[in-house]
Amino acid sequence: MTIVDIINKKRLNKELTREEIDFAVSGYLDGSVKDYQMSSLLMAIVINGMTDRETIDLTDIMLKSGEVIDLSKIDGLIVDKHSTGGVGDKVTLVLAPLLASFGIKIAKMSGRGLGHTGGTIDKLESIEGFNTSIDNKAFIKQVNKINIALVSQTGNLVPADKKIYALRDVTGTVESIPLIASSIMSKKLASGSDIIMIDVKVGNGALMKNFHDAKKLARIMVKIGKAYRKPTICILTNMEEPLGYAIGNSLEVKEAIDTLKGNGPSDLLEVVMTFASLIVGAYKKISNNEARDLIFKQINTGAAYKKFEEMVKAQGGDIEKIKYTDKVFSIKSDKEGYINKIDALALGNIAKKIGAGRNSLEDEIDYEVGLVLSKKVGDYVAKDEELVKVYLKNKDISISEILSCFEIDPELTNDPQLILGIVK
Amino acid sequence: MTIVDIINKKRLNKELTREEIDFAVSGYLDGSVKDYQMSSLLMAIVINGMTDRETIDLTDIMLKSGEVIDLSKIDGLIVDKHSTGGVGDKVTLVLAPLLASFGIKIAKMSGRGLGHTGGTIDKLESIEGFNTSIDNKAFIKQVNKINIALVSQTGNLVPADKKIYALRDVTGTVESIPLIASSIMSKKLASGSDIIMIDVKVGNGALMKNFHDAKKLARIMVKIGKAYRKPTICILTNMEEPLGYAIGNSLEVKEAIDTLKGNGPSDLLEVVMTFASLIVGAYKKISNNEARDLIFKQINTGAAYKKFEEMVKAQGGDIEKIKYTDKVFSIKSDKEGYINKIDALALGNIAKKIGAGRNSLEDEIDYEVGLVLSKKVGDYVAKDEELVKVYLKNKDISISEILSCFEIDPELTNDPQLILGIVK
Repeated sequence: MTIVDIINKKRLNKELTREEIDFAVSGYLDGSVKDYQMSSLLMAIVINGMTDRETIDLTDIMLKSGEVIDLSKIDGLIVDKHSTGGVGDKVTLVLAPLLASFGIKIAKMSGRGLGHTGGTIDKLESIEGFNTSIDNKAFIKQVNKINIALVSQTGNLVPADKKIYALRDVTGTVESIPLIASSIMSKKLASGSDIIMIDVKVGNGALMKNFHDAKKLARIMVKIGKAYRKPTICILTNMEEPLGYAIGNSLEVKEAIDTLKGNGPSDLLEVVMTFASLIVGAYKKISNNEARDLIFKQINTGAAYKKFEEMVKAQGGDIEKIKYTDKVFSIKSDKEGYINKIDALALGNIAKKIGAGRNSLEDEIDYEVGLVLSKKVGDYVAKDEELVKVYLKNKDISISEILSCFEIDPELTNDPQLILGIVK
Repeated sequence: MTIVDIINKKRLNKELTREEIDFAVSGYLDGSVKDYQMSSLLMAIVINGMTDRETIDLTDIMLKSGEVIDLSKIDGLIVDKHSTGGVGDKVTLVLAPLLASFGIKIAKMSGRGLGHTGGTIDKLESIEGFNTSIDNKAFIKQVNKINIALVSQTGNLVPADKKIYALRDVTGTVESIPLIASSIMSKKLASGSDIIMIDVKVGNGALMKNFHDAKKLARIMVKIGKAYRKPTICILTNMEEPLGYAIGNSLEVKEAIDTLKGNGPSDLLEVVMTFASLIVGAYKKISNNEARDLIFKQINTGAAYKKFEEMVKAQGGDIEKIKYTDKVFSIKSDKEGYINKIDALALGNIAKKIGAGRNSLEDEIDYEVGLVLSKKVGDYVAKDEELVKVYLKNKDISISEILSCFEIDPELTNDPQLILGIVK
């Protein structure tokens, strides 16, 4: 067996054996397979695809390339949640404490984000004092005590994915359903939870640009989960416009808190509700409607927010101290009409440009900057009415660049659907 | 423009602009595009293909990456000949002096071979004293004086191809018609001749395994030639069995000499004749039949062989001193019947294994070893009659491995065609 034989086989669109996939991945990790050989194989996989069997084997081989977190010392049902990434996506910040307030365990270790804003861990660090570097023992103790801990990943989880992902990023081999599925699922399976929830974002601000691909990705991830007897639930949600109003780290934390208190944007609440009702329904063996009622109650009584507060306190944060820049610009509409489109990707890129996100893991995030929409798709805007607030610090951005993200017409033609499907 | 954008574009099977191809190739040469990015792009090209326009642009960009040989100081029609590579292929050794004996100029600079045996230059070096390292001035002087010089390539011809080819070799990206065509044609165009003849070998012992692909390759090469106003003639010839009887460097030189003297194998003579009659016919403005008559005369009067002798002498070789090992083994058939198949690829690999060819350019070739068939496809062989002579020196080979290259049946079922097509 040589790596060139394996590359040639995939080039000719033939199914690779487990041994061949292992030879390539292990060889890449130990350096006997070179970068330029792996990237050539990856491109052949991107174009020719992988069967479900190959994808499951690839996931398993990557999973076994490193540590698997042992959560057996945590009592109760442990739920993990992942998002394929979107603009203004603060679902975890709301969903995790909400579920924890029901007694469901959230023991979540996350990497740092490379998106338009930071990841969940980065966002939480915009709360003064919030400590995400907690050792394994303290992590498990906290989950057993208050049901929730959101910490940054330690240990050597799925090193094969880390190395392969870095290569994919610079070789045009990111957009592949089997590669995305195995990357996500190997990390989720290494994280040790009992149930895996995945928010598959669909649209121009997401990795999956259309419903068809998103559904394919969801289907194979659920199948991988089944192979490990880990129930996996994928919800396909709209990412044509940003989720909620806020884009930026501290701004999103604030919006998450508002939502936990019952004052959040309806789209964010609906995504949270869809996930939460599935889990709470199954956990309490009640119908989805009953679960929804319970969840509303949990929010309205303040129990959900209290759990968030508890977590912040347990991890050393001061919830009264979330900083925003005071340099805020109001961007006003130059015409009147109905908003038919808000370009999530373009707004995400603007957020990154003004410092809310990273280009490489060495970059520093500015927690205080970002954008807060004043309007969403479907809203009417008058001329000179505010469209968006821009929270700036050291960087600059042009008004016309922001205005070009909004499509405003005399007629309302767009009525986007938020929840596009559930695969489980 | 970034290399990742270009890779993504080709991944999505879109046509690259000349600027994009130039960005990739020039960037690869100057190091700003990395090995792993180039190999990813190459794999996308191998699978998704290139349009004729892209292939011509790639050829041009590679051609212009280095020196182009100036043969303007040579008077008369200069003809170049190339083969895509086959087992026992000594056509150039016969064809070049034959054409030169008509006054046609052969000014050929070749690289060294990485095939089952050495290339033309390596084969000539099996003649004691034969010097292939001649400077440009002496090279042109020799061609003007005796019409022919076969020397090893000097100077920095098509460095982009050299670097890309080395990468393709280790990344499973060899088998691509646009990449093969641009690699061959950029080198041929850099060599400065007026007419380009290409022997496109077809079959199990060749790069092109089937007629369809071979024809596609020929068609695009002829089209590239036209773009430079360099008449390009491709002849598709059979490479299911070795050409002629001899495989090995000095053994092939001997068979070439026999052919120049009128005692060569009929298949080798027919390939030579097909090329030569096209060129001589055009050169002398006579019909193909008249050209064939003239060529037979040129061989029978000894003029063709005399030209070979002249060249060997001019380049310092002693034609009386061609060495073969005296360790010769006669391999006899273990059954009787008609030979329906002789596996060219397997015999080529055996020749390489016993030292006739190189795996890397650092390897030394053993000029004295090789194989000489006693039978060809279509022949009858009795039990214990000789099938092949093996010329061995330091290496070993098993008899059964050699016997397994021959398919011998009670009935003759195979009647292979030698000349499969002409594209010009």
